[in-house]
Amino acid sequence: MSTRKLQVGVAGLGRMGKRHALNFHQNAPRATLVAVSSPDAEERKWATENLAPHGVAVYESYDDLVAHKGLEAVCVASATSVHAEQAIKAIEAGKHVLCEKPLGITVEISQTVVDAAAKRPDLKVMCGFSRRFDASYRDAYSKVRDGLIGRPAVLRSQTCDMFDPSGFFVAYAQFSGGIFVDCSIHDIDLALWFFGEEEARVKSVHAVGITAVEPDLRQHGDRDNAVGTVEFRDGRIAHLYASRMMAAGQEDVTEVIGTEGKLSVNILPAKNHVKIYQPGGIRQELPQNYWDRFQAAFTTEAIEFTECVLDDRPVPVKLATAVAAVKIGAALQESMIKGYKIWFDENGERTDKAQL
Amino acid sequence: MSTRKLQVGVAGLGRMGKRHALNFHQNAPRATLVAVSSPDAEERKWATENLAPHGVAVYESYDDLVAHKGLEAVCVASATSVHAEQAIKAIEAGKHVLCEKPLGITVEISQTVVDAAAKRPDLKVMCGFSRRFDASYRDAYSKVRDGLIGRPAVLRSQTCDMFDPSGFFVAYAQFSGGIFVDCSIHDIDLALWFFGEEEARVKSVHAVGITAVEPDLRQHGDRDNAVGTVEFRDGRIAHLYASRMMAAGQEDVTEVIGTEGKLSVNILPAKNHVKIYQPGGIRQELPQNYWDRFQAAFTTEAIEFTECVLDDRPVPVKLATAVAAVKIGAALQESMIKGYKIWFDENGERTDKAQL
Amino acid sequence: MSTRKLQVGVAGLGRMGKRHALNFHQNAPRATLVAVSSPDAEERKWATENLAPHGVAVYESYDDLVAHKGLEAVCVASATSVHAEQAIKAIEAGKHVLCEKPLGITVEISQTVVDAAAKRPDLKVMCGFSRRFDASYRDAYSKVRDGLIGRPAVLRSQTCDMFDPSGFFVAYAQFSGGIFVDCSIHDIDLALWFFGEEEARVKSVHAVGITAVEPDLRQHGDRDNAVGTVEFRDGRIAHLYASRMMAAGQEDVTEVIGTEGKLSVNILPAKNHVKIYQPGGIRQELPQNYWDRFQAAFTTEAIEFTECVLDDRPVPVKLATAVAAVKIGAALQESMIKGYKIWFDENGERTDKAQL
Amino acid sequence: MSTRKLQVGVAGLGRMGKRHALNFHQNAPRATLVAVSSPDAEERKWATENLAPHGVAVYESYDDLVAHKGLEAVCVASATSVHAEQAIKAIEAGKHVLCEKPLGITVEISQTVVDAAAKRPDLKVMCGFSRRFDASYRDAYSKVRDGLIGRPAVLRSQTCDMFDPSGFFVAYAQFSGGIFVDCSIHDIDLALWFFGEEEARVKSVHAVGITAVEPDLRQHGDRDNAVGTVEFRDGRIAHLYASRMMAAGQEDVTEVIGTEGKLSVNILPAKNHVKIYQPGGIRQELPQNYWDRFQAAFTTEAIEFTECVLDDRPVPVKLATAVAAVKIGAALQESMIKGYKIWFDENGERTDKAQL
Repeated sequence: MSTRKLQVGVAGLGRMGKRHALNFHQNAPRATLVAVSSPDAEERKWATENLAPHGVAVYESYDDLVAHKGLEAVCVASATSVHAEQAIKAIEAGKHVLCEKPLGITVEISQTVVDAAAKRPDLKVMCGFSRRFDASYRDAYSKVRDGLIGRPAVLRSQTCDMFDPSGFFVAYAQFSGGIFVDCSIHDIDLALWFFGEEEARVKSVHAVGITAVEPDLRQHGDRDNAVGTVEFRDGRIAHLYASRMMAAGQEDVTEVIGTEGKLSVNILPAKNHVKIYQPGGIRQELPQNYWDRFQAAFTTEAIEFTECVLDDRPVPVKLATAVAAVKIGAALQESMIKGYKIWFDENGERTDKAQL
Repeated sequence: MSTRKLQVGVAGLGRMGKRHALNFHQNAPRATLVAVSSPDAEERKWATENLAPHGVAVYESYDDLVAHKGLEAVCVASATSVHAEQAIKAIEAGKHVLCEKPLGITVEISQTVVDAAAKRPDLKVMCGFSRRFDASYRDAYSKVRDGLIGRPAVLRSQTCDMFDPSGFFVAYAQFSGGIFVDCSIHDIDLALWFFGEEEARVKSVHAVGITAVEPDLRQHGDRDNAVGTVEFRDGRIAHLYASRMMAAGQEDVTEVIGTEGKLSVNILPAKNHVKIYQPGGIRQELPQNYWDRFQAAFTTEAIEFTECVLDDRPVPVKLATAVAAVKIGAALQESMIKGYKIWFDENGERTDKAQL
Repeated sequence: MSTRKLQVGVAGLGRMGKRHALNFHQNAPRATLVAVSSPDAEERKWATENLAPHGVAVYESYDDLVAHKGLEAVCVASATSVHAEQAIKAIEAGKHVLCEKPLGITVEISQTVVDAAAKRPDLKVMCGFSRRFDASYRDAYSKVRDGLIGRPAVLRSQTCDMFDPSGFFVAYAQFSGGIFVDCSIHDIDLALWFFGEEEARVKSVHAVGITAVEPDLRQHGDRDNAVGTVEFRDGRIAHLYASRMMAAGQEDVTEVIGTEGKLSVNILPAKNHVKIYQPGGIRQELPQNYWDRFQAAFTTEAIEFTECVLDDRPVPVKLATAVAAVKIGAALQESMIKGYKIWFDENGERTDKAQL
Repeated sequence: MSTRKLQVGVAGLGRMGKRHALNFHQNAPRATLVAVSSPDAEERKWATENLAPHGVAVYESYDDLVAHKGLEAVCVASATSVHAEQAIKAIEAGKHVLCEKPLGITVEISQTVVDAAAKRPDLKVMCGFSRRFDASYRDAYSKVRDGLIGRPAVLRSQTCDMFDPSGFFVAYAQFSGGIFVDCSIHDIDLALWFFGEEEARVKSVHAVGITAVEPDLRQHGDRDNAVGTVEFRDGRIAHLYASRMMAAGQEDVTEVIGTEGKLSVNILPAKNHVKIYQPGGIRQELPQNYWDRFQAAFTTEAIEFTECVLDDRPVPVKLATAVAAVKIGAALQESMIKGYKIWFDENGERTDKAQL
């Protein structure tokens, strides 16, 4: 085991960027956070106060971050719209890359990252599907792989965020790619993972959506509650639900239903081990957001990405899967908005011909 | 309160018929089971041994049952294919009717019962959607009606049976109308109930299905796992899952998701209050079939149907809803088999025009 | 199977008496409620309105009830202080008896019932420990008997009532025998049942208690929260908790801990299958009192007592066990109030000598 | 915030010592593990392979560890029998100390550490009651402090280890102080914490125990299942259960019952968010040992101890509480073995006089 530490930079210091920066700074023992960048003055102020005293360089320009002397790896945690561009710049500069999901909001953009990475097989390039690093999902995956539930045939998965009355999601919807690309992408990745990243080829998608609490989402071609169905060619189904209006907290639930058993992950969410007994009943609190639920997974992600680089091991998430997930997510979004079912032929190309 | 008892007959003594007969015999204090009928000799033998000693007449012919002196009400629990015909005969003979679901496997057949009943407003005619009588579903419904979760916007509901290796379901599929008409009909009824039996008008349906464990179902145009989506015109969605391959037991789960909260019914099924701690973890057993789960609901159904007749109160399930449920179920089944999405216009008529 | 019905009378029409009366009237198909009695005019008024129309005789005097023509069995559901006296009168009149727990508040009184019953081996005399008839406790018992958890070594059991701000329990404490005799008697009976009614001989008891919410209980030698420990001579332990101050509802929980596994009953109480998701978390409501939790058990009790009489089978709860339970309960109550530990020798007699 | 790192040494490299060493090495960003010591050659071999490459000095002698140049703090994770002696040596050498529980197996030994620490108020000396650092216990504590459940009156807490067929616990019992000092010490500390470290003065203790699976424990004055009751002078009760024979896994459960509500911690243990649905029911796996359950708490403990030293803040666990806990634990152990109840007078001295 190498004892040297990986020199990591984090691009973007918004909600997720700050968390990634602190994660690499505090929780990944084999990594050293050496630099961060953000075009936003407020965000840089935070970094100057919290990271600079520990020797972390703070840049306005992403290019300067990439040029930081000694930098070996970049964690791209900036706005979705620049994920691909920044990832590619880093790859071309010879840096390893951990890129937040999604690579881009279209298949075409996402594919450019894969193409860039293909030219540099010496680099580790990974899309950060955080649930792959969650202990419960991993436990479920290893049980499935060990045959505990027979052949997985149906996957039900939901990404349901707590309602945010600030209107944040309306503004965010302009750039996010929509609820299926932004939220359900995790569930789609889970389907690809559990059904087999090689085997699971999409046959059809169909989706419907409503705006139950945020009618303004319609102007951005988005919905606040969406239900989608994905058929795969080898006779498997994923059914997905995404919502922005949960009252109690974050509810990310998955069920993997096999021919001989079923596994559920987080079927009854809880923040911790406490239950509260009061007039009205017994209550358990919930994580209030994605970070509360998956904080430990992000730490594991940072640690393992670091290890893959230092120990020259393959990254645990295939980059091509990130493109496949965007392909399905973007098609679901289109189906929801346009109303029609979308078919794919045996080559994965869109077709008007029903594939029965 | 009248102290006289309703004279009830039960038609059909198969799996459900026997249960209905015993229910009226033992558990409905204001009803007296006076007669039963079955074309099946084995079933009549059971009745001769178990019911006849208590003064219950046992008939081969349904017509004889209806003609039984003093008979006031009939519970139709025979094969689905004769539900409508038997219900209509009873109505025409002036008997109150509790008919097992579905009224028929097509809208047309189902409607004939409604038409017959319309001519006899003095009679109580009810389709037995047993979940309406389950204490938990009722509690959820009353909470929704009281506004606890705001406006219900999304309903997720599943009817998932334990795998039956005997092949029973393959044979049964010939006459059942398919998994959406046979199983999901309950979930569809729940959607109509929770969303409003008047307001909830279907806009589109779409479904997919697979045969994960029973490929022979294909020859009857059926599947063993099916996922469906129902859009309603007032911006609500039901997503449904039905399965015949559960490993652990009966898993009938419903979630009603509102703008200000959510209710789940049976999210983590359990047979009773016992938990078993052994190497491997903590385990709870599940009801093994529909009856284990809903036994008390069937008792309540029998008691309340009896009360409605004796006290001349409206039955709790509108007969028209039973037709609306078959309409949606049959369309989902067609969508699943044919692959296309089905649209309905504002009059509830099928249309080729997308309703966006 | 006999088709005649058992003629049953219920003595006492207070909280439990009403329930027993309705139970025999409505839910026990092989019993007919023929008469009830109560010294209380209000209670008789209720019976006159609700039972008399169905042909049930209503008496002021218990003696008149017992003398009711054709009466075969009496359910004694009157005040604890007259349980024994009424049970004995019925036995001496040749009636079968189902007596509410406890037989009496002292061993001596309780024993008089056993003695009376011993003279009439032709009669069925049973003390109504309702938990024995609860489906979950029965399931647990049958699993223990089948060896699922090895040898049961420790039993933890609690009877915890919802706080009743009316002060009812303070007045009630004068006659109840105290919290261990009134509440924990169920848990003690469970210990005797699960550890073996023959083998489980008490070695020592010790208890402590507090008045956390009802200081006035002290004037009656009682407490509102009590913890007791019972050692048995064959190396088993029961630890008991009883409380009158639960905020959320009725919490009757039992754990049976064996050398190879554990069973819990009702470890996380719930009123039904509904869960409520709101800001603040996910909540489940609780039964609000003993009846809500054990209603079905009381029905089973009535049905089975009736069957034992009609079919001449032994009653499922040994009468001697009811005395053994009072013996332990009364000793726990004394230990709690007086502060000392109480020892029993190998003959079950109290002794000052520690039994190590 | 200081950016320098605390120089920490860990004494003892057994089961817990290894974990503490790795914790300070990997998970406490403001600490640097600089040295470890162990008298055991195997343990030193592990350190040489795993820690030395990262610059950690490995000593055989504890004195050499304390003398390590630049060392600022010692984590004492050696055998219980040398906890006090090593802690005192470190204090006298001017080092901050984090000492594993218990300080010693008697009050007298434990008190020597408090006395030594009293002479060096400049040093941080803390006994590591790990549950105090668990997120769930902390959440419960803050809810109690905020008055959510009124006045806490009863605490039920259990420390139940999975059965270890290797016989390890028999050998270990020679030096552990017994099941109440070794296991229940955590539950006792919780009682003192939740009831108030200042206010909660013990009035009486009583305990019973059995050897259900390990009869050889008797030769060391120990038991494998033990139930204890602790009365406090201000009218509160703790009831405790400790066991070495759990079949399913680690079951550390606590309930805090207040006058207006109740909190439970870990009432239904689970290893993670996965549930397994198979024939036989729905199953959740459990943590298999103390570390699986409390790993994150140990990390928090290391991080917070480090912060207290670097930022000169008081440690979160009062040292005197560690002595009070041993006092109660040792008295419970004596009560269990000798059979008598033990009383304490208003000064906390043992007395023969019942304190009613």
